[in-house]
This record gives sequence, structure tokens and C-alpha cells, in this order.
Amino acid sequence: MKQSQMFIPTLKENPADAEARSHQLMLRAGYIRQTSAGVYTYLPLAVKVLHKIEAIIRQEIEETGAVEVSMPELIPADLWHESGRYDTYGDNLFKLKDRHQRDFVLGPTHEETVTDLVRNEIRSYKKLPLTLYQIKTKFRDEDRPRYGLLRGREFVMKDGYSFSANEKQLDDVFHATEKAYRAIFDRVGLNYRVIIGDAGAMGGSDSREFSAIAEIGEDTIVYTDNNDYAANLEMARNVDKYIPTQEPELALTKVATPDAGTIAEVAAFLQIDAKKLIKSVLFMADGQPVLALIRGDYDINDVKLKNFLKADFLEMASDDEVKQWLQAPVGSVGPVGIAEEIRVVADETVTKMINAVVGANEAGHHLTNVNPGRDFPLAPESVTDLRFVREGDTAMDGTSTLHFTRGIEIAHIFKLGTRYTETFHANFLDENGREQPLIMGCYGIGVSRLLSAIVEQHSDEQGIVWPRAVAPFDIHLIPINLKNAEQAALTSEIEEILRQAGLTYLTDDRKERPGVKFAESELIGLPIRITVGKKASEGVVEVQLRETGENVEVKKDDLINVLQIFLTRSAS
Amino acid sequence: MKQSQMFIPTLKENPADAEARSHQLMLRAGYIRQTSAGVYTYLPLAVKVLHKIEAIIRQEIEETGAVEVSMPELIPADLWHESGRYDTYGDNLFKLKDRHQRDFVLGPTHEETVTDLVRNEIRSYKKLPLTLYQIKTKFRDEDRPRYGLLRGREFVMKDGYSFSANEKQLDDVFHATEKAYRAIFDRVGLNYRVIIGDAGAMGGSDSREFSAIAEIGEDTIVYTDNNDYAANLEMARNVDKYIPTQEPELALTKVATPDAGTIAEVAAFLQIDAKKLIKSVLFMADGQPVLALIRGDYDINDVKLKNFLKADFLEMASDDEVKQWLQAPVGSVGPVGIAEEIRVVADETVTKMINAVVGANEAGHHLTNVNPGRDFPLAPESVTDLRFVREGDTAMDGTSTLHFTRGIEIAHIFKLGTRYTETFHANFLDENGREQPLIMGCYGIGVSRLLSAIVEQHSDEQGIVWPRAVAPFDIHLIPINLKNAEQAALTSEIEEILRQAGLTYLTDDRKERPGVKFAESELIGLPIRITVGKKASEGVVEVQLRETGENVEVKKDDLINVLQIFLTRSAS
Repeated sequence: MKQSQMFIPTLKENPADAEARSHQLMLRAGYIRQTSAGVYTYLPLAVKVLHKIEAIIRQEIEETGAVEVSMPELIPADLWHESGRYDTYGDNLFKLKDRHQRDFVLGPTHEETVTDLVRNEIRSYKKLPLTLYQIKTKFRDEDRPRYGLLRGREFVMKDGYSFSANEKQLDDVFHATEKAYRAIFDRVGLNYRVIIGDAGAMGGSDSREFSAIAEIGEDTIVYTDNNDYAANLEMARNVDKYIPTQEPELALTKVATPDAGTIAEVAAFLQIDAKKLIKSVLFMADGQPVLALIRGDYDINDVKLKNFLKADFLEMASDDEVKQWLQAPVGSVGPVGIAEEIRVVADETVTKMINAVVGANEAGHHLTNVNPGRDFPLAPESVTDLRFVREGDTAMDGTSTLHFTRGIEIAHIFKLGTRYTETFHANFLDENGREQPLIMGCYGIGVSRLLSAIVEQHSDEQGIVWPRAVAPFDIHLIPINLKNAEQAALTSEIEEILRQAGLTYLTDDRKERPGVKFAESELIGLPIRITVGKKASEGVVEVQLRETGENVEVKKDDLINVLQIFLTRSAS
Repeated sequence: MKQSQMFIPTLKENPADAEARSHQLMLRAGYIRQTSAGVYTYLPLAVKVLHKIEAIIRQEIEETGAVEVSMPELIPADLWHESGRYDTYGDNLFKLKDRHQRDFVLGPTHEETVTDLVRNEIRSYKKLPLTLYQIKTKFRDEDRPRYGLLRGREFVMKDGYSFSANEKQLDDVFHATEKAYRAIFDRVGLNYRVIIGDAGAMGGSDSREFSAIAEIGEDTIVYTDNNDYAANLEMARNVDKYIPTQEPELALTKVATPDAGTIAEVAAFLQIDAKKLIKSVLFMADGQPVLALIRGDYDINDVKLKNFLKADFLEMASDDEVKQWLQAPVGSVGPVGIAEEIRVVADETVTKMINAVVGANEAGHHLTNVNPGRDFPLAPESVTDLRFVREGDTAMDGTSTLHFTRGIEIAHIFKLGTRYTETFHANFLDENGREQPLIMGCYGIGVSRLLSAIVEQHSDEQGIVWPRAVAPFDIHLIPINLKNAEQAALTSEIEEILRQAGLTYLTDDRKERPGVKFAESELIGLPIRITVGKKASEGVVEVQLRETGENVEVKKDDLINVLQIFLTRSAS
């Protein structure tokens, strides 16, 4: 391919509004351009990378028996009303009307569409298991799109949906898909971790999240030294090793705590450790008030709370709601003497507390010597793990230490169970002729996001350094001066050699200074550069490995051998 | 590929609401399912056909030097305001707002987006010519979507845009693209014609339309026996050979024509030939009244009128508008004595008329002995060809006869010129350092529509008959009974033989009666069927060509040779 025919608009400067390294590099190297916030045009080089990634995904995922379909992007709102997500999905859902004023949504995901498709066609266990997947444009109206392709409003996803007759079939496809995903991310050259994800958001029972390690990542990954454990911060668990002092239960006392609202302020005012305080936070779960309690040195993990409550929608209560239910401002609330309609849910740490301090539900006052069970009811079935773990905490094995790192969510697999099929009456007849809801799994890869994740991990000061498997071309062929007949002839000869070896190449046939050509070549980041220069008359070219900068002079007859060695190395 | 893993939900009966043969067959054979009016899910077999078509398109179109990009489907309304099409495109444009109440459209085409992209990046003639293309989902909110994929609201298109420094460059890419398109449609097995299309709709100067011949086609194609001429009905021209009688001009007379409104009624009432009448029709062109005149035996071609007027928007005046401008009902209007603001445009046939009849602009009255020029002004620059040609008319060569056939528009190429680049200030510096607007062409193929067009042309009573180049698999391998060990072993052996020969196959491993398997196989329409039955013990199978039904018994060692012969034949 001739570079003069391509459209690679490079930029000399880092664009001011691009924060993420991958975003900067893909703009500068001419891979993408923004059309509107979070919406991008993929330029020719990026399209080639996308196609390579898509081919790898198709190949690995079809090994699991999944078959490709293509569902519409324009989805009748009726299907989303049927699942209930039309209202609960929130502002991220793009909504529109057609010319007849019928409501539609732009698909951010396709559980509804695929369940609707399958419920009309699959009647018997004999047709199961079935896994359908697609690679499609998706839409999510992010409040704050950013980091280029990492958090966009229009993006490419691979989404797959499995339908099974029983849990064993679901387990099989879940594990086969996890294996295929590992193969995909290995092949595209990513450093990633498979972590325990939040299945609750999709109404499922089990999930794995694939996270590419990167500073810019929006997810905190919690892991142990020995790598036995890795989880999303929202799902991570710890062992709380704190042993409270043994002391007799004292009498409940109300104390004035003027101007002290936060845990730190109250602890300082009363001159006690934060571990003596019970943090009380009012949430609204599907419209009902829930008071969540946790020991003062921890923060409440709302994802754990939401999953525990099996709520569709959970958010912290507003100041007005707090006043309405607890007759007190936010900094002074607690579980003592509250209305029976308010459900109390406590973290496990709370049950061990003796003579604790809580808000008195009266502005500027707290209660001391509060004892759970004595001073407020606490049913065992309302005690669970609500903790956000902290770096350095003890892992669930009781000995390892929890570490934090940051990652980009690149894929997610869920056991959905019958969340959608029951609602949609998507049933099949089992071997005994009994009607059963289909058992679903869903499996997603953020395809366009992978471009960014790969660039986050594969770049240097000069630009992008593509792993060979996803590079737009294998080789950047750079003649210094095409007006020189020997260089022109040798360039053509080398193109022919590369073509016959099945290697792809981009020939920089532009009239630019060598410095410009080299700088742009490093920015673009193809694995190998071949320079045809002064020694063309001797049939000698320079071969350079982008990743390490190693370079050697090679006679054209030895070229393929040297390239094979270099390319094998850059593939790893 | 095992058929039990695929998702091919066949139907026994023709769906009641599917009119077009291709629509019926693609539903029945399990290729597509409707999600909402004009919006379809492509099932696994259809996805395979789509991918094959897309690969052929990419290969041929990249030969012309075009490079692939991927532009967003979600387009800021600002760009469509800038081109003016936000208002003129009409109800076919899907419009929506994002969470911040900013306006967007779903792209039905990408002239605006690509011009916006290029105006920011292309500064110099040195970067020209440049041709960008994409294969993407498009949206058009058709009033009456129908015929399955033929007229959908969400569909796949290949759209390409060329940018040139001069007319010569534009001509070159226009012709190269026409050649590539011919190669594409030849390869996918279509019987099509390249016809003169309406360039005006896109604001361009020249266009070619590719039309697949089919009864169900919504376009009328006009062509001559000798194939020297083919045009869309809207663009077709004729020679009007009628020679009016020579007679002296008589005095203008008003006559009562009670209850006679149409040309036929007036001609019958006055006992004259329709050729003596001038048909007068009031149009509103970009809000201005235009009275179009034509001889009574012709109909006015509004596309020709619109292009002649260079109007963005043209429609027949409403009854109210006719009354407002001409003070008479529709059946009684004419050009005599009308207000000066009303522009009069006449077909060439009108200038030759003597003592003609027109409406008197008074209910129930006509004028006779009307002579153009004498009784109403008719400037030479307002005379043009406004005729819809009729089957049997004489072609422009003066001798050939015009015939009609019906076709499906499958592609369209336009010389757009500077319609968009001037509006968008998309300029480049030419060799002399002068700023010039880029010269554009645009090139579209209805990719998903091709599926339907191919099926319209390639089917029989039993089902679809795919040309090999686009068939989902080359071969349908049908073991009669997989419980029979010899049949199972021979089936596996043949799968291995096919794999090694690079042939793709679908193995019907389902427990179904042979009659069901064969009927569904004919419905699905793969080029070759291989049946493994009783003679498996002798290593003999039956090979049948779907297209002709020819079948032979073949020993497994001869299989590849026989297949090569059959496949070559089915490729044509």
C-alpha cells in the first residue's frame, strides 16, 4: 500500500484536550478523529487494526461453537419496556421516535433483542445449547465521555448470548468463552487480569471481568501477591482482623457534638478512634429507605449493598429524604429509635462493636455506649459484607495482603440465568416435555476500546509500538529518495519480496525529508521499518525493530530470514 | 460447520405479509427475521453471505485506490444544518437528542461527515486525489418499508467519497469506480444494467445507476433494443415525432366544460385529440409557484422539472395553493392571464402547438384556440424536456424503440462537484497556491439490498439457488443416518477431504427424516449437495448440483475432481 494513497493526518503537537496517552497517540498518529464528544471516525490505519482484532475474535469465539448474527441497532422501545430496563437504564440510553411517533432506543446491549428472537424460534431442548454473537456498533450516552475510545458514546462491541437447557450447559459455554477470551487477549498482546466482577448489575449470578492493566484505567483491581485472587474493587473481599476491646456494656448516653458531622470530626471531638463509631448511611433502594451501617474506619460499598438487597436501583438518599425519614441532617443520623419501615442492613464489623457511637437523629448530637441488638434491632439475615476493602487489608485466605492496581475493563462475561427469559417467557420443552425458561449467559468485549488499551500498554516516547498481530501493516518500507533510480528499483523489488512472503507493508512514497518520514513512522508504530537508502546500489537495506530500536543492514537476499526473526520477536 | 450448532429457523409456510419472493425465501430459509417494520436481524446464514459480499466489495474497490474508514452513525445535527439537508431531507431522517439536549441525526449517508473530516485535514493538491469508503449500517425512516431487505429502515451500505483537485481526477475515479462496481456485480452473479441516473437529487452533474433486473423492482428502466441506451424512467429521453397539423391561428375563445376536469374528460367533451390540449400543473419549487405545461398525451416528469429549476424541494401544489395562485380548481387551470410571479415552464412539445386548449382559470371553463407566445408569454429559456417517456417511444437516436423493464437500484455513483465543499469551505491550495474547493464524487452500494436482489434472480420453486461466490457454504453435506457407523465414518472422511481442498461445508448432523433434510437443503440453496447414504459402505456418495438438479454417484477418491467441475459451473 502506498502511503500517498492512505489518509494518515499526523499532528506535530499533542492535542490539548486529550488526557490519556492512547488518546493522544491515536490522534497524533492519524488513527482517529473526533466527530462529536465521545464519537469518533476511525481513519484507515485504525480500520485495519479493528479488522485484525475482529478477525482474531471471530476465530477464537467460533471455536466455542458460537455463531455470528447481526441484530439491529434500532430497537423498539417495547422490548425494553418488557424487560423493565427502559426506565432503569437511565440517561445512558439514547431514545428516539420514528416518523410515526413510535419509540425506539439505540442498542447499548442486546439481551432484549436476542431473547425476543430466540423465544419465537427455540422450542425444544434438542436445539440447545445455542450461542449467538455479533460484532456491532453500540451506543451509550455517557455523561462524561473521555479518554478517546476508552469511554465513547458510539463504540464497537462483540456481544454474545448463550442459551442453555441446564446449568451444566451454561457452565460449559461460560468456561469455553473465558478460555477463548484469554486466547484473544493473549494474541492481541495485552497484559490483563481476569477478576471477579459484579454480576448483579446484569441480574446474574456469576461473572468474570477482564481488565487490562493501565494507569489510566477507571477500575481499581484488587489482587494478592500470589495472584490467587483478583477482583474488582466493588467485589473485593477482605478478612477484618480487628479485635475490639472487651468491655462491659454501658448505659446509652446522648452527647452534644456541635459542628461535628463526619466520622473524623466526631472521633476528634470525642477523642476516640474511628473504629468506635458506626457509620450510618441512608439509601433509597427501589424507592424504599435502607439504613446501612458499617464500622467508622470503612466505607460502604454500594454495589455490595445493591446486590445484597437484589435492588434494581439504589442510590444514596438526598438531604431531603434523610430529613423526611430520620428527622435529622445527614451528619447526625443513626439506627436507634427509627421508624420500622426503614430496613437496617449492617456490615459484619458492626456486630462485634461494644459501646459504639452513632448519630442521635437530632442535629448536633450523637449517642454513645450504643450496643447493637440492645439499642437497635439487628437481625442476623441483615448482616453481610458491605465493606470497600483497603490497600494492605488481609485477603480472604487470612494471610495474603491485598494490593491495588488500575485497569481498563475490556471484557465481561456473566451467567445471566433466567433474568430475561422468565420476563420474556422464553421457554423450551425439556426432555420430559416440561416447559422451562431458557438459561442465559452473556459475553462482551469492548472491541474499539481494545485499540486504546493496547496503545496504553504499547508505546514509547516516539509513538505507538503495535504488537504484530494487530499492527495495521507488518512493515513500514521507507525509501529515502524515490527519484534515485537505484532506490526506486530496490523498493519495488523489496515490495515484491514482501508480497511473496505474505507480509503486508506500507511504502512511504511521499516527497518528505527523511527526518519527517522516520518520525512519523515511529509515531505510527509498525513493527518493522525497512529503509532503502544510499546502499541501494549494493542491494543493502536497513531493517529496524520498532520495539527495541535494534537495527541491522541486510542484503536483499537475506531479508526474509532476518524479518522472520524480527517479527517473531515483536509478536511476543 | 455442524448444522445443529447453527441457528437456521426454517418455516414451512410462506409468511403472509411477505410479498417479494426474496423476502419470502429469506424468511422461510432462516436467513432473516424482522425486529420492527423495515428492521431485520441477520441470522447466521445471512451474515455469511453479507461477509462474502463485503469481501468482494473491499477487494474490487481497493483496486481503485480507495481506502477504508469508519465514520460514526450518530452525526451532530449541526453538520446537516450546515449543508441545509437537516430541513430538506424530510421525514426520512431519524432525529434524536442526547442527554444534554443536543441534536443528532442517524446517518442515512455521509457527505456532511466526510466533508467535515477532510476540510480539517487536506490543505494541498499534493494530497489529492483521495477516496475514502466505508461499509456501515445506515438509517432511513422510510414511510413504507417493504420487500424485506429491499426497502428497509436500517440497512448496510458501502459508501465512498472521492476528493479531487480537478475534473480529470474526478473523471478517473468515477470511471474506475464504475469499472469496480461492474466487477463486483458480475462476481456476485447479478443480471444488471448501468443506466443514466438522476444526479440532481444529490446536487451533482452526472450519475450512473446500477439496476438489477427484477419484476419486483421499484424502478422502471428504459432501454433500447440495441442496448446503446438505458436510463431510469425519471431521466429517460425520447424524440417526439408528432407533427401537429398546420392551421391558421384562430381567435381565443372561452368555452364551458362542465364536469370535465381531466385531460381525457375535456378531450371527450370537446371531441378533440388529447394532443390538442396543454396539460397545466402548478408546482411549488422551494416555496415559489411554477406552472408546468406539457402536451396532453404526456405526463410531467417532476424529476426533470426539479433538475431544470435546480430546486432543492419540489412538490405539486395543494388544492389550496392552486386556488390561492390561480383562483380556480385543479381541473381548470392554464397559463393565460396569470400573475407575473408565477413562473411558466413548458415542455418542448408545447411550442409546436397551434390552437390548443387550456384551462381558463375559472371553474368549469376552458380556453380554445390558445397559441403559445401569442396568448401567454413563453421565453425560450423556459422551454425544456419535461416528458415522461412511454414504452414504444422513439429513442434519441431517432430510430430505436424504447422498452421498459423493472429493476432494483443496487448502486449509484455521482459526480457531486462542489455542492458540499463550497458550503463547508473545504478548500485546498492548487499548484499555483490558489485556494479552490475540493471536487467530490460519491459512490454507494446497497449491500444488504444485494442479498435480496441476488435471491430475486436466483431461486426456483424449491428455494434459493446461491451463486457460489456468495453462498454461505460451498457444500451441504447430508448424511442420511449418522447412527450408521459407515455413514458416520464416511461423513467425517469427506469433511476432511473438503477441508483440505479449501471448500466450506455445512453438515446436516440433525436427527431429521431425509425428506425434511433435502427439502430444507433446497430451501437454503447451497450450490452443491453431497448425500451420504446406503452406499457409504462402498465409499460412494451422491453429488447434486442445486441449480440444475443434475446428480451423480461418486467414489470418494473422485470427489474433488467432480466438485471442481460442478462448482465452476455453478459459479457462472
